[in-house]
Amino acid sequence: MHPIIFDKTCYRIQGKPTYIYSGEFHYFRVPKKDWRRRMKLFKEAGGNCLATYVPWIVHEPAEGHMIFGGEDGVRDVEGFLQLACEMGLYVVARPGPYQYSELKYDGLPTWLCENYPELRAHDIHGKAFRTSSVSYLHPLFLEKTRIWFEHVCPIIARNTVHNGGSVAFVQFDNEMGGIHWWMSGHDYNAEAMGIGKRGGYFPRFLERRYGTIAELNRLCETKFKSFETVRPIEPANSDSIPRIRQAKDYIDFYYWSLGEYSRQLAEMIRGHGIDVPLVHNSPNPDSNAQYKEMVAAVPQPFLLGSDHYYNLGQDWPQNNPTPQYAIRTFHSCEMLRLMGFPPTVWELPSGSCSDWPPILAQDAMACYLSNIAFGMKAHNYYVFTGGPNPPGLGTTWDIYDYNAGIGANGEIRPLYNVQKELGRIIAKYPWLAEAEREGDCRLAIDFEHPRSEKYWRSHAGFLLTGTEAWNFLKRGVLSSAFCGSLSPVLCNIDDDDWVADLSTPVMVVSAAVMSKASQQRLVKFLRAGGQALILPVLPTVDENMEPCTLLADFLGAAALRKKTAQAVRVNVAGVINISNTGEVYFTDQLPAGATVVGEDELTHSTLAWKKTFRGGGAAIFLGFRWNHSVHEHWRMLAALLQDLGMKQRVFCSNPNIWTSLRTAGKKKLLFLMNLHSSPQETHV
Amino acid sequence: MHPIIFDKTCYRIQGKPTYIYSGEFHYFRVPKKDWRRRMKLFKEAGGNCLATYVPWIVHEPAEGHMIFGGEDGVRDVEGFLQLACEMGLYVVARPGPYQYSELKYDGLPTWLCENYPELRAHDIHGKAFRTSSVSYLHPLFLEKTRIWFEHVCPIIARNTVHNGGSVAFVQFDNEMGGIHWWMSGHDYNAEAMGIGKRGGYFPRFLERRYGTIAELNRLCETKFKSFETVRPIEPANSDSIPRIRQAKDYIDFYYWSLGEYSRQLAEMIRGHGIDVPLVHNSPNPDSNAQYKEMVAAVPQPFLLGSDHYYNLGQDWPQNNPTPQYAIRTFHSCEMLRLMGFPPTVWELPSGSCSDWPPILAQDAMACYLSNIAFGMKAHNYYVFTGGPNPPGLGTTWDIYDYNAGIGANGEIRPLYNVQKELGRIIAKYPWLAEAEREGDCRLAIDFEHPRSEKYWRSHAGFLLTGTEAWNFLKRGVLSSAFCGSLSPVLCNIDDDDWVADLSTPVMVVSAAVMSKASQQRLVKFLRAGGQALILPVLPTVDENMEPCTLLADFLGAAALRKKTAQAVRVNVAGVINISNTGEVYFTDQLPAGATVVGEDELTHSTLAWKKTFRGGGAAIFLGFRWNHSVHEHWRMLAALLQDLGMKQRVFCSNPNIWTSLRTAGKKKLLFLMNLHSSPQETHV
Repeated sequence: MHPIIFDKTCYRIQGKPTYIYSGEFHYFRVPKKDWRRRMKLFKEAGGNCLATYVPWIVHEPAEGHMIFGGEDGVRDVEGFLQLACEMGLYVVARPGPYQYSELKYDGLPTWLCENYPELRAHDIHGKAFRTSSVSYLHPLFLEKTRIWFEHVCPIIARNTVHNGGSVAFVQFDNEMGGIHWWMSGHDYNAEAMGIGKRGGYFPRFLERRYGTIAELNRLCETKFKSFETVRPIEPANSDSIPRIRQAKDYIDFYYWSLGEYSRQLAEMIRGHGIDVPLVHNSPNPDSNAQYKEMVAAVPQPFLLGSDHYYNLGQDWPQNNPTPQYAIRTFHSCEMLRLMGFPPTVWELPSGSCSDWPPILAQDAMACYLSNIAFGMKAHNYYVFTGGPNPPGLGTTWDIYDYNAGIGANGEIRPLYNVQKELGRIIAKYPWLAEAEREGDCRLAIDFEHPRSEKYWRSHAGFLLTGTEAWNFLKRGVLSSAFCGSLSPVLCNIDDDDWVADLSTPVMVVSAAVMSKASQQRLVKFLRAGGQALILPVLPTVDENMEPCTLLADFLGAAALRKKTAQAVRVNVAGVINISNTGEVYFTDQLPAGATVVGEDELTHSTLAWKKTFRGGGAAIFLGFRWNHSVHEHWRMLAALLQDLGMKQRVFCSNPNIWTSLRTAGKKKLLFLMNLHSSPQETHV
Repeated sequence: MHPIIFDKTCYRIQGKPTYIYSGEFHYFRVPKKDWRRRMKLFKEAGGNCLATYVPWIVHEPAEGHMIFGGEDGVRDVEGFLQLACEMGLYVVARPGPYQYSELKYDGLPTWLCENYPELRAHDIHGKAFRTSSVSYLHPLFLEKTRIWFEHVCPIIARNTVHNGGSVAFVQFDNEMGGIHWWMSGHDYNAEAMGIGKRGGYFPRFLERRYGTIAELNRLCETKFKSFETVRPIEPANSDSIPRIRQAKDYIDFYYWSLGEYSRQLAEMIRGHGIDVPLVHNSPNPDSNAQYKEMVAAVPQPFLLGSDHYYNLGQDWPQNNPTPQYAIRTFHSCEMLRLMGFPPTVWELPSGSCSDWPPILAQDAMACYLSNIAFGMKAHNYYVFTGGPNPPGLGTTWDIYDYNAGIGANGEIRPLYNVQKELGRIIAKYPWLAEAEREGDCRLAIDFEHPRSEKYWRSHAGFLLTGTEAWNFLKRGVLSSAFCGSLSPVLCNIDDDDWVADLSTPVMVVSAAVMSKASQQRLVKFLRAGGQALILPVLPTVDENMEPCTLLADFLGAAALRKKTAQAVRVNVAGVINISNTGEVYFTDQLPAGATVVGEDELTHSTLAWKKTFRGGGAAIFLGFRWNHSVHEHWRMLAALLQDLGMKQRVFCSNPNIWTSLRTAGKKKLLFLMNLHSSPQETHV
């Protein structure tokens, strides 16, 4: 089997762009006697790759007692890898240390969790998390992991594609951070994180960030004697700039620690001669930005993907794929692309760990096609097929088949047929493997916004927090754009690559914070002739929360005035709207040379204005934030973008049908999405 | 037109059981020239009643300046009432003082909200709520309301059915309490509530409750000198029994104050000669129990209904009617029935104040039929039709037609056709107006459970809070029951009426608290030969949180032992389950004469046991709490109820299709509900 490589556009096998169609297939659950038949069924559905955890808890039942192989298949990982190879299927091997997978102790060995309580993650008050939530960087945990890898990695290594085997990718750990965030919060284990320790990770991080303790004390308004004496504060207490800084320091450090943990795991894995790409999975679209440090820390080849579930139990927000899910899918695929990867969904729902609410075949198909519509270039069904849990190791029920397309006993369910249909679609349009989405407008995303809710909980005098900006981007701008059948494409405001491209207008959702470099980029873009819609506020501080009004100065704009009221009726570009967020941002001093584009109907305060620049550049500022709810929201957005020269690419008469156009050269495929639960009609 | 009367079974007109098919129709929005045509369309859809707010803000634009009548219809409430009468349509008149209705200041006059800031509700720290959230019992607010009623009530009075007009019901206020709960929390306005005031409402309430300040101090572990010096505490601080008591005192008082406000409004309204039934609408199913005091305070005839929306904007939990919505609909209809009323949905979704996510016709039909399936005997579409908002008074957009069946310009939309179809169904089965739901098991509900989240925020040493019990009842027991095609019927544990009925087993979801009288009832039921399934804990205190183990003593049960663990695998009645709430409750000392029905597979600790009594009564106790997720949950529940003699009434092969059987005499109608977004098959 030939290696699979990837670049920012696509996966390639022998130079040929190839869609990776993978399915999770647990050798420790699926009965061995049925492995071959189910692999055949998977190939018939269009599959070319399998994925499996290699659970530590299964292979090291007692400390030092490693078991691999055996007749019943439960521990025969190598037999599985070899059979996959024989069947012509690639494998993504996921040896942990964490697996989750609804296994006891998240797949960590019982002895490790029960005999070494010192490994557990701690909250900021020193309270230990649950038994199986460890502190990743604890030296003892890393040491135990090293021993586990010494046994499992050689098996994987001799089965990589480079050695004539099936393993094309190796995933380290699983949804990293989840066992902290979902159980309690960030990990503050002082021993592992080195809080208060000379040479510890945390003081060294602070030293890299601030240089001197005096600088830290100046910016945080603290009086620490040294980096070793700095103690983190609770994010809930971030009610002033110095305290937001302190809270952010620890959160950034925590993300850095995930990167460091990843780096160490990667080093261990590669130390065993594994030279295929390493991969990791973000647990959900809103977490993608939290792996920036991981992406920076792990040497290439490394690829980040994301998990895109829509329902795993009755308390999930929605039972079926919805437009809200589509927004998440969209920004996730786009963020992965912007991070340099072909968008990969490492866990695409193929059933659920709950029998109820059900994952029904038609819903699953809507989910799959929405992901493809938004540029997914590889996916892995979680799970393609299942079977009984190893005795005593399941946390859901005895059988773990996820109601997947192929059941525990090998029975074929309706879900299999839609997966086969998806395989036919991918085979019919092989060029989708390298197709990009076509856009008529861009939306600049600030990766800091989705991260900021972890450390920035109060306004602290700012007009708009990063979290508010992120929610507005999703619930306002993007939802309106799709209802208006616009074709937005994301760009990363922290990258330079979008600045020279003047082909489409750029929307910028700004919080009070925007990095100095990003403000400069935007100025450069406008100077060069670019068209930008900036909303709903202008930045007033840079990434260090120090005053920085480069952008506002260029625009000639003074401070904005926030108005909080139950109902403000505004006219923007001839479209009437009423604020449904309760906040608008007025420009009391119109910048020199600007023309009014929108105002409060009652007081005639200026809400939106346009300014053009030498070179043909133009900016519209709109001090209005909304949750998409009425047609006038998308009408306003479309009118402003048209004013900035947008040429709409797709026209769809029904705002409840969303569209996405994917093209490669002259080949085009237009996706129409009805993510509601009634049939609908539209003209496109 | 003949008066409409009601009893606990149905509405009657001239003695004939009649379904009330009503539609909201705002004379101040719908263009007057189209009133007649739209009323005709409504009658053609099966309608027999209209409802309208009579907004104070519309009729008293400046203080003392009342306007009624006029050519344009916006203020011609009487013309509207008369036309409805001419068309043979009853009217529910809703003169406030509050309307909400997406009107500025929730329908209160601008001058009232802006010129009298002293009226505003206050949080516990004395901070005023938003402009239009007033303190209901503030003497000045009541005085202004009295003046408003002096103008509007005579108009309504001369148009009641008793006076030859169309008005069959009058609603006071709207979703009472909502303008506090949704904006900030409970109202602690000291002036209005009389906190700290001699003869004030709050100290008098405490005096009625405790008799002497010494008794209050004993139970609350406080040292107040008099009732006048008692200050409420924040519910968030309810971390011990005395503090839960203190928090509950204020919450109970708050609900009492809603009753007192209602009583005063009713007195004003009836003082103007309005003798038709008064009505009110609970904002949602989970709030129904909060109006117990209102039901007690307002003299008959009075009827409480509920509002049953499923989506009014993108941040609602689900876009379409789902099984989770069905659970809410079910317990709401049942609770209203138990309160003595034919289940009435005063606001049944007919569109939404948001264009998006859309309310689609097929979804709406699923919503309507689910409500009928669960016993709805009257409904009012919100809104049947709409039109432009009076200028400057809308908070959503200029047009307020809710995407209803009949649009602002009178256009007929697909939703109208399903409403017409619903009308045909109701006409085809007129006996539904008096039909009850058939049941094969009962579930005793404690109205205190849904109320308790307002005052009981921590365990405070108890095994299970009321809120946990309430969530378990919905997410565990009821969801499992419907997945298992059981036909549960609710009974009120605080009533005596269910005790003598031994025909079906009774499930009792108990928290640590259960009133002494209810414990006695349950003992009486078991003694008389009744069959009960009690779960997941046994009560240890009575309604005053004083020790009371009457039920446990009768069963011979000692204290339970709570186990918290990631995964406990249990065998109950031969069905294997794994705890997914992380908590089980073990019985370490098996009661004398009891037999084990369920145990922890690993430790063999007793989880469930059965005890039979002379007279044939039997109780099963099950110390297991779950969120319904696997088929084994309903299998376990069904097995236990079968052990207690349940004769299952309906068998449905697909657990994702829920059923409800309504019967009247020999007439039967079986409802099958697919509340998912894919088609499904089933055998029934």
